[in-house]
Amino acid sequence: MGGDPAPRGDFAVLTDADLAAFREILGDDNVRTDARSLDACNEDWMRKYRGNAGVLLLPARTSQVSAILRHCNARGLAVVPQGGNTGLVGGGVPVHDEIVLGMRRMNAVLSVDPVAGTVVCEAGCVLEDLEHALNARGMTAPLDLGAKGRCQIGGNVSTNAGGLRLVRHGSLHGSVLGLEVVTADGTVLDLVRTLRKDNTGYDLKQLFIGAEGTLGVVTKVAMLAPRKPTGVDVAVCAVGSFADAVAALRDARTKLGDCLQAFEFFDRASLELVLSTLRGARDPLPKTKAPFYVVTETAVFGDGSGKGSVTHRAARRRVRAWVRSLRKRGVAIDGVVGEDAKHASALWNLRERISVALKHAGAVYKYDVSLPTERMYDLVVETRNRLAASTSASTSTSTSASTSAASTSFDASKVSVLGYGHLGDGNLHLNVSSPDGYHPGLEAILEPFVYQWTAEQRGSISAEHGVGAMKPRELAHSKDEASIEAMRRVKEVFDPRGILNPYKVLPPRLTEHRSKL
Amino acid sequence: MGGDPAPRGDFAVLTDADLAAFREILGDDNVRTDARSLDACNEDWMRKYRGNAGVLLLPARTSQVSAILRHCNARGLAVVPQGGNTGLVGGGVPVHDEIVLGMRRMNAVLSVDPVAGTVVCEAGCVLEDLEHALNARGMTAPLDLGAKGRCQIGGNVSTNAGGLRLVRHGSLHGSVLGLEVVTADGTVLDLVRTLRKDNTGYDLKQLFIGAEGTLGVVTKVAMLAPRKPTGVDVAVCAVGSFADAVAALRDARTKLGDCLQAFEFFDRASLELVLSTLRGARDPLPKTKAPFYVVTETAVFGDGSGKGSVTHRAARRRVRAWVRSLRKRGVAIDGVVGEDAKHASALWNLRERISVALKHAGAVYKYDVSLPTERMYDLVVETRNRLAASTSASTSTSTSASTSAASTSFDASKVSVLGYGHLGDGNLHLNVSSPDGYHPGLEAILEPFVYQWTAEQRGSISAEHGVGAMKPRELAHSKDEASIEAMRRVKEVFDPRGILNPYKVLPPRLTEHRSKL
Repeated sequence: MGGDPAPRGDFAVLTDADLAAFREILGDDNVRTDARSLDACNEDWMRKYRGNAGVLLLPARTSQVSAILRHCNARGLAVVPQGGNTGLVGGGVPVHDEIVLGMRRMNAVLSVDPVAGTVVCEAGCVLEDLEHALNARGMTAPLDLGAKGRCQIGGNVSTNAGGLRLVRHGSLHGSVLGLEVVTADGTVLDLVRTLRKDNTGYDLKQLFIGAEGTLGVVTKVAMLAPRKPTGVDVAVCAVGSFADAVAALRDARTKLGDCLQAFEFFDRASLELVLSTLRGARDPLPKTKAPFYVVTETAVFGDGSGKGSVTHRAARRRVRAWVRSLRKRGVAIDGVVGEDAKHASALWNLRERISVALKHAGAVYKYDVSLPTERMYDLVVETRNRLAASTSASTSTSTSASTSAASTSFDASKVSVLGYGHLGDGNLHLNVSSPDGYHPGLEAILEPFVYQWTAEQRGSISAEHGVGAMKPRELAHSKDEASIEAMRRVKEVFDPRGILNPYKVLPPRLTEHRSKL
Repeated sequence: MGGDPAPRGDFAVLTDADLAAFREILGDDNVRTDARSLDACNEDWMRKYRGNAGVLLLPARTSQVSAILRHCNARGLAVVPQGGNTGLVGGGVPVHDEIVLGMRRMNAVLSVDPVAGTVVCEAGCVLEDLEHALNARGMTAPLDLGAKGRCQIGGNVSTNAGGLRLVRHGSLHGSVLGLEVVTADGTVLDLVRTLRKDNTGYDLKQLFIGAEGTLGVVTKVAMLAPRKPTGVDVAVCAVGSFADAVAALRDARTKLGDCLQAFEFFDRASLELVLSTLRGARDPLPKTKAPFYVVTETAVFGDGSGKGSVTHRAARRRVRAWVRSLRKRGVAIDGVVGEDAKHASALWNLRERISVALKHAGAVYKYDVSLPTERMYDLVVETRNRLAASTSASTSTSTSASTSAASTSFDASKVSVLGYGHLGDGNLHLNVSSPDGYHPGLEAILEPFVYQWTAEQRGSISAEHGVGAMKPRELAHSKDEASIEAMRRVKEVFDPRGILNPYKVLPPRLTEHRSKL
């Protein structure tokens, strides 16, 4: 959790006059101060981060966002932009009494161009709604993630969401074509373009992709919308070791490279949790109790006309041949290819719903790291070892004064360490499930160990979840001081008073003495 | 050409003491003041832009780049970083007496990782050399362009080069994973990562992609290196109208979408020029004199093992079936698929060497714009119309005092207007060939018309060539004032004294009074 929350900054306190000004801009209905609205926006979905905002503002137009920020900037009121509130690092909820700017009313799909393969929508558009709008035109969004039913595209952009199909579509830095952003003083930057190429000056929009709302509020998004596949195949293979999972990835790149959409993995502990927690989940390969499973998704785009296009039947044959060949060569122990859409979706759910299963199980420490592919799972093993060592230490020396209270007062036997994630992207989700709740002693075993270990591999301490309120003080594990200082200077350009999502992303300067860039 | 060059800024003048300092850093050999070295680095390859640098510096290490910039920043000496000097907008040559920082000695490929699909190299690495190094490991660079034999990867990144395979690989904003950059005061930003995902703070490297050396000098590049196709097929189809070219694109996306690498077009005038200018060039479809031609490149990645992978033979059959179906449906008049690698390369050359043919023909006004796909060619037609109108006007009123000297003193009958480019990316190259040389009267017909017309379609006045010295004053056609002001503030963060590639990219502020962001 990154230690104690940052102390409240020197921001103004919300007054009745401020509320009156907001009502003037938004109308009474969209300035919410009732307990229910505030409860919902003050806490994240994991119930790990909780703030104390006194008002939730719900703008419907860019001009209203601009007017709100102009007011807040002039008054020195801090603001946290909030999308679907599905973030995992506390980036979208207040830390203290920041005003919450909820984007959900700005949810229109503004234009879809099937020829150019582009879409423009408002930031509050729910990802799944956008996906449906695009599907109706034979297109698909360039990202997909478990939270799609609630997360908003503005939040996706602001956190540079990765998700399940980055293997195919690449990162949002490539697929976002344009943004409209309101910066701290209410300035509207119109960077909305649907052009695939535009080299006219600095690509400013890139700064807001992944800035977690600390540089500006994203209000509109233009992005590539690829063609929707005409068929999709999902295969799950059981493998005997993590090295075999990596071998399967390498083989898939060679054999299926042109149609591979996703390459995921999970370990046995993840599967067991899903099977025991989620209704209807079934072991995909009940004859095998394998330590690891890999999931591939392949797509076919042909219209089946035979006029140069590939049929889904031919594509599925190809996937089946690949799975057979993996087994024959001993890379996989067993494998299954989804028979139809329902079966394929059941297979996908085993991977996609791990995080829901974890939430059902109780408190969970979530780490999201990028690592060299071959070494990815070592972090899971090392974490288990640390936990085991701490248990035996606390058992064997439980009467010793040298054992800290923290390390003895949680039941390590109930804690489980799971590894799963986006193998094709080198992105591990290390999850430590603690049904008895969050505990400082457990946290002390995990942090800063996980960050330090990741830094030693020159990995990233946040692959896709972002920094939020969880990791500003850990940023130095992934970025050098010159780069962090450059980020602070960029922040000053767009938000000189620091009102936008304070306490997030950037660590406070160690000294007031500003170092040279 | 964007009018008169900007007046020289208030920079220091190079002294013997500066040269001595540079010799201290680089050794005598790498501080070049001889006429031959200076001639080569002062002029661009089109001979359109010429500066007056007094020294060419050739660093071999990042620490030397840092020491040079620290010295220049302290002294207030202006610097222009130069790669292969293949730019088209004068971005890589001095305007006045800026010091030229040549990157060619920093040309090492530092690491190649076939499993992760990544490469790290120094900025001065020639693109074709990098491509060969990657090919040897079964990989390919995520970009390809006509100038590959001379252009350097640092220049590619600094100009956000697009090139021929953007349809497949997307833009460098997606495929560059990390950069090392030296900012104006010599600070080294180590943003070199080979991770596919890294959400730790602002993605600063993105700012330097396409900044044309005005924010920092790129010294190292880490990027995705996709698998090299095991087979490639090139097809050229003759179509009866630009609308049919667009229809063919739409059809290719549907039928060949998963293996399409490039979708290009050229008009009859471009083909005629290539046929008449370049030795060995032959009409690919001699029975047809079509107004437009489209070029597709498709790739196959299977290893031909039959274990789930596609064979090249099957892939070529697919392309042939597609071309046949285009003809049957009347979308194409005629078509040819390359029989073998040599034939395929001859077909590609027809498109790829248009710009070389243009250079052979003499002076050429080059415009590189992004436009809505369907309207792309209208700009070529409109430009021809303007030229014709000016000719008839100058002929019919040649004795009238109202005809300016400029408009009468070039022979419009010798001027030809060509259109070709990256149809799949909505990127038109409008080229106006003027064998008699550059002429203000001709330029007045073309500019600002081309920029204004493009702005009216909400296009980009620079799709991939950049702004350089050619278009700073035209930037407002593509970006609003708030965005341009934000760019200026970002420039101040990384280069407060403005020593890096001055007179390029950003237009001067209209007033000294700095507007609010």
